Amino acid sequence: MRVFIAGIDGYLGWTLAQYLTARGHEVAGADAMLRREWVAEMESQSAMPIFSREERLEAFKAHYGKELDFRVGNFLDYDFIAEFFEEFKPEAIVHLGQMPSAPYSMIDREHIVFTQHNNVIGNLNLLWAMKDIVPDAHLLKLGTMGEYGTPNMDIPEGFFEVEYRGRKDTLPFPRQAASYYHWSKVHDSNNTMYACKIWGLRATDVMQGVVFGTRIDEMGENPDPRLRTRLDFDQSFGTAINRFVCQAVIDHPLTLYGAGHQKRGFLPLRDAMQCMALTIENPAEKGEYRVFNQFEETYSIIELADMVQGVGAEIGVDVDIYEYDNPRNEMAEHYFNPDRQHLLDIGYQPTHDVRSEVRVMMQDLLPHKDRIEASKDALIPQYRWDGTHRRSAQIRKASSLKQTQ
Amino acid sequence: MRVFIAGIDGYLGWTLAQYLTARGHEVAGADAMLRREWVAEMESQSAMPIFSREERLEAFKAHYGKELDFRVGNFLDYDFIAEFFEEFKPEAIVHLGQMPSAPYSMIDREHIVFTQHNNVIGNLNLLWAMKDIVPDAHLLKLGTMGEYGTPNMDIPEGFFEVEYRGRKDTLPFPRQAASYYHWSKVHDSNNTMYACKIWGLRATDVMQGVVFGTRIDEMGENPDPRLRTRLDFDQSFGTAINRFVCQAVIDHPLTLYGAGHQKRGFLPLRDAMQCMALTIENPAEKGEYRVFNQFEETYSIIELADMVQGVGAEIGVDVDIYEYDNPRNEMAEHYFNPDRQHLLDIGYQPTHDVRSEVRVMMQDLLPHKDRIEASKDALIPQYRWDGTHRRSAQIRKASSLKQTQ
Repeated sequence: MRVFIAGIDGYLGWTLAQYLTARGHEVAGADAMLRREWVAEMESQSAMPIFSREERLEAFKAHYGKELDFRVGNFLDYDFIAEFFEEFKPEAIVHLGQMPSAPYSMIDREHIVFTQHNNVIGNLNLLWAMKDIVPDAHLLKLGTMGEYGTPNMDIPEGFFEVEYRGRKDTLPFPRQAASYYHWSKVHDSNNTMYACKIWGLRATDVMQGVVFGTRIDEMGENPDPRLRTRLDFDQSFGTAINRFVCQAVIDHPLTLYGAGHQKRGFLPLRDAMQCMALTIENPAEKGEYRVFNQFEETYSIIELADMVQGVGAEIGVDVDIYEYDNPRNEMAEHYFNPDRQHLLDIGYQPTHDVRSEVRVMMQDLLPHKDRIEASKDALIPQYRWDGTHRRSAQIRKASSLKQTQ
Repeated sequence: MRVFIAGIDGYLGWTLAQYLTARGHEVAGADAMLRREWVAEMESQSAMPIFSREERLEAFKAHYGKELDFRVGNFLDYDFIAEFFEEFKPEAIVHLGQMPSAPYSMIDREHIVFTQHNNVIGNLNLLWAMKDIVPDAHLLKLGTMGEYGTPNMDIPEGFFEVEYRGRKDTLPFPRQAASYYHWSKVHDSNNTMYACKIWGLRATDVMQGVVFGTRIDEMGENPDPRLRTRLDFDQSFGTAINRFVCQAVIDHPLTLYGAGHQKRGFLPLRDAMQCMALTIENPAEKGEYRVFNQFEETYSIIELADMVQGVGAEIGVDVDIYEYDNPRNEMAEHYFNPDRQHLLDIGYQPTHDVRSEVRVMMQDLLPHKDRIEASKDALIPQYRWDGTHRRSAQIRKASSLKQTQ
């Protein structure tokens, strides 16, 4: 299938280009190359060295035996998308080309406005290009489990049948996002749902959990470093497990925000690839807007920190876990039970082994200790949801899960 | 109270400046003056002649005995808002400064993008200016009943208590908007709800029905023409009753979209003013985000057309009603029963007399027949929700309500 990846230079995008190519799909994509700048703005860098577009493409050709049509361009530039679509005529479009960080979106007014403008208008441009040029193509749009927030009830996949004052209807499940980034994704979900309704587009909106991991098998046993994807650990782009493993390898305490009882859905990079490929290969119907919750399992943050600590102990890395005052506005304790049946129905086989994934990550990251050390100030959150900037203080050593259970 | 009106040159804004001033409030406001351009883009004009900002301000001074601080500026320009807020220090902010038309938003990609950019970023700028400069001020943000769509159940005011799989929570009521304009308002509602949560702002989000009417009593019995507000009738900015009355006075058939069984909430201009003043005078608590459904009564479109026909007959104006093929994607027949208790609780007294309002409108508009005649091509919708442009065809003479009941 001809698959277009928006955001092909990113953590997921660069990996997906390889995964889909190895699976026999014809891949093309574009990227504005902004993630590299955003992480530099955080005075950080990818823990795994990443290479220029040209170097990546050389390695891609060498390893997969195919040229990759990877162009530099911005999704705010409609003509760029339109020309690319006219030429490539994608059958599936994976939209990963957005600003993906909650803390980055909350820095100040400029960053809030940038995030919503970049994400909402870029997505509208993609939708219109589909309608105009490839109306039968299938959109796999990346949303986030964070769109739902933490309601005191099960979270269905996008829609629920509900009774109110004696009448029933199937309605979109209410969203209660927890940052202006997450709200930008809700806006995109709404705009996409509506495009399917009025223009007959087909879309799968993936509410994805937090992804962790440093590699996929397709890269090879000893991957060419140029094939490696980025792995961020800074306060804005470093998500929970990835950041923890980076902290562990430099002997920095794992940074829980509060007591770490927040629960979230997680999945390894290899599962994210599996899920996206299955979704592409099982497209939505014409006019259909469907929502897939995409995660392997839910964990509390302290559970994951414990797991990283445990794996560290196995290989002689001593890991502390500390509570930091939480820069975010989020519930410390809450019910969390999201569905994730749709992906299982089309064949998703969850890995169910976080520990061995973390082990691989530690081995992949240990050689790059110096890169993490060099930006270790970026590990501590400083952008607070109330609009102020102040590095979070260490509160206390965390009660590990074993002690609290 | 010091009240800032964003969009003070508009249909509601210019009227509200007068209503609040007459009620003793200190009013200031700003407008980018774009509505005048958008209507010109529709090759139309206000049925009531409107005057320049300078002429309006002269008449305002003469009639109300006060200078009005009405500046020209765009809400996309943050510094403009910030400087104005620093000087005026508003206690209440009424946000009417948006692109308010569903059909205009659906013209093409450029108009979709313009609408969402203009409305979402302008609203974010206002929210940040409140947080930064007047954090105790109360925001009255204008939403629309159209955010809810037409679910098969009662529509509460913003939130509902719901049980799902045996667990209960109070959640935002799901939105199912019916144009990219309406979705822009949903995005704004979500962004505003979140600003109250994280920054402790106070806001009332008014889900307003369709407003109709040509005057309020405060303008005087024979208003100075410069005090008059605009009254649009074109396919994009002319809403149901206003457009019907303009059609009636030039002997043009009233244009139903489909059979006209769509139900909506409506309220006269004078009720909209009453509701907004009451809301300003009864502000939300610090950190509170509350939603008011603001309409006087729900009617089907054919009921309203019948009413305009009836009033026309009284004064010798012969009115036909025709069905046109519907350019919109909306349900032809549906349940519609929204709540509107919150405004009654703070003292709203609905007018409950559409017929006399329509009678006043006809008398106000008859002298301006020539202005409506001059742009009568603009009465027929041409921008279709499927992205094409084609003037709607006349299908048949409508079965009036009397015949179908």
